[in-house]
Amino acid sequence: MDKSIRNLFQIRENVHFLNHGSFGACPKKVFQAYQDWQRSLEEQPVAFLGREIGDLLDNVRRRLGAEIGASPDDLVFVPNVTHGVNIVARSLKLGGGDEILITNHEYGACKNTWEFISKKTGALVKEREIMIPIAPTLRQEEIADQFLAGITEKTKLIFISHITSPTALRLPVEIICQKARQLGILTIIDGAHAPGQIPLNIAEISADFYTGNCHKWMMSAKGAGFLYVRPDTQHLIEPLVVSWGYSAPLSHHNKTRLATLLEWTGTFDPAPYLSISAALDFADEYNWDFTRDECENLLQVALDRINEITGIDPIYPNRKGWYRQMGIVELPGDINVQNLKLRLYNDFHVEIPTIEWMNRKFLRISIQGYNSEDDIDALVAGIKCSLE
Amino acid sequence: MDKSIRNLFQIRENVHFLNHGSFGACPKKVFQAYQDWQRSLEEQPVAFLGREIGDLLDNVRRRLGAEIGASPDDLVFVPNVTHGVNIVARSLKLGGGDEILITNHEYGACKNTWEFISKKTGALVKEREIMIPIAPTLRQEEIADQFLAGITEKTKLIFISHITSPTALRLPVEIICQKARQLGILTIIDGAHAPGQIPLNIAEISADFYTGNCHKWMMSAKGAGFLYVRPDTQHLIEPLVVSWGYSAPLSHHNKTRLATLLEWTGTFDPAPYLSISAALDFADEYNWDFTRDECENLLQVALDRINEITGIDPIYPNRKGWYRQMGIVELPGDINVQNLKLRLYNDFHVEIPTIEWMNRKFLRISIQGYNSEDDIDALVAGIKCSLE
Repeated sequence: MDKSIRNLFQIRENVHFLNHGSFGACPKKVFQAYQDWQRSLEEQPVAFLGREIGDLLDNVRRRLGAEIGASPDDLVFVPNVTHGVNIVARSLKLGGGDEILITNHEYGACKNTWEFISKKTGALVKEREIMIPIAPTLRQEEIADQFLAGITEKTKLIFISHITSPTALRLPVEIICQKARQLGILTIIDGAHAPGQIPLNIAEISADFYTGNCHKWMMSAKGAGFLYVRPDTQHLIEPLVVSWGYSAPLSHHNKTRLATLLEWTGTFDPAPYLSISAALDFADEYNWDFTRDECENLLQVALDRINEITGIDPIYPNRKGWYRQMGIVELPGDINVQNLKLRLYNDFHVEIPTIEWMNRKFLRISIQGYNSEDDIDALVAGIKCSLE
Repeated sequence: MDKSIRNLFQIRENVHFLNHGSFGACPKKVFQAYQDWQRSLEEQPVAFLGREIGDLLDNVRRRLGAEIGASPDDLVFVPNVTHGVNIVARSLKLGGGDEILITNHEYGACKNTWEFISKKTGALVKEREIMIPIAPTLRQEEIADQFLAGITEKTKLIFISHITSPTALRLPVEIICQKARQLGILTIIDGAHAPGQIPLNIAEISADFYTGNCHKWMMSAKGAGFLYVRPDTQHLIEPLVVSWGYSAPLSHHNKTRLATLLEWTGTFDPAPYLSISAALDFADEYNWDFTRDECENLLQVALDRINEITGIDPIYPNRKGWYRQMGIVELPGDINVQNLKLRLYNDFHVEIPTIEWMNRKFLRISIQGYNSEDDIDALVAGIKCSLE
């Protein structure tokens, strides 16, 4: 890894930051553009928030749409995926006995959202197991089949992650959404970890709803995400935070019903959304595809080194496409992960999440451009000491 | 007015900014503290958002609570009043035929929220008229009585502004909430324009719910508000954006059920909330009570001068307490307010909102520390030209 890249970021020197996945990290240049937008706003808040904001957001919307393969007309900005999932969850008219099919790898906050809806409506959340480690010869189609076997005639909605949070598993959302569409089942994809980590063509996935974060792997400022809604399901959507748009005609501020209804949620700072353009510029300028390749290589080394220490099987087959910049290794079942996490941070200055999932224990390693072999060496040293 | 105060703000030199009311304006010092928080966050996002945030927010919560007369245990941060109103509106279990009593002075986005709830639940929104101008001898008690006469046995909820948005009218929320409490009717106060403009003692008001903005008259960064919930109605509250808190035990991150349930809504930038401390420091350091007095005096001059031009009666009695830093004047009914607004901005560089309300037309004048006689002169010159 090119160590000069680290200087493009603001992460403190004295930490081995191996948790880009939780909240992302914003490069200096992007952050500068972000704070510049905030300064512009404060020079004339009414001009900015009352008049210019519509065109500014539409410019970013077009740029983002081109990047992720979605028409800008089908995109709205949301603060994050949790917010996006909540919009959809509250909009759909589920009833008693309806089933929401999810995997056993979903993000806790989003699972909570479906549990909340379940309690309100009587719909049932059905968790379908996808086993890990993934067998070396397994194909994505087989994972899709494993999951799709959970469909019953009561299944009204499928909720799955594009890349799972606790297990960093890339799921075959294209196959699953296509099949669901044939069966008349709605699909919503949690794309928290996908944009900026893997290439996206959202229209091709053919999900009804796809919500993603830009502040994680796309490296915008915090509080920037999007919700994509297929044109033919947009009529289902209600506002989560009802505001002016609920009674507003379309105007030059809001070119679509979707944006009119959802995007203005009272006075807020739109700079995170506006910073997405600078984040995409940054990725272009620094040839980030190459950096992602380097990250993937470093991640592979890290996973191999730790698997070798623990003697536990790798989670992913040794083939391209199962992970990119985030992956997990399993830890011995008798380890105290709270203690491990504290020891790694306090004694080895390694910031990394430990995961407890399905009564098993894991480390989730995120690699971004600012990481280097040094960070992996520190992690490996910490793991060795802790397992002795 | 002391012209050196203008230099404490970031508002562009070439605009007569008479619309503090819409989005506020943040002093340089407060803004600096705000952006410093954002920089701290980016140096170690996991330490900041994952570990330190709970104590940081609790410090601000205590500080804010002391300022507005509310226990920190009954306060949560929300991005703005619209969000706060939506939390309450979605939480309450209203049914068909239940009545929500509001005034005819409420803010459009919040009215939309109740219309949305009405459509979902069958509850009815009843608008009770409060007449303006306020007769010179009228007492606040009489306004309260006018409004309270709208109560029926079906009234379940009262929603009123502390200071109204279209008409800058200070409503007797204390009297109304006390009476409502005797009758078993819930009350929610839209305090968008109150914090930082008038002294607050929220616990004394005895509303069930009070939501206010800090980014308007308290001069924090954009996207900082609060929701106060009385201890004995907190059990009614559900999260609007369901996230981790829905299933979380209380922890050092979240000391109360209310904050646990509502405050973490997915990855976001907490810097606006944290900037509230700097905003309160700023008001202390620059003796803002004195500045508010100066603003009130300048506002009175402005209202008088324009009323003299139009020959229309003033809206408020000529006594203390009816307005502070924001007030309205009525305009002739035949004026085209869109044209007036454009002319004032383009030809006189005056940023000011024109209001159409109940088939009548108004100007809403906001005065903040950065304003001076020059701004009023420009406004008066513009009005004179436009009325000729």
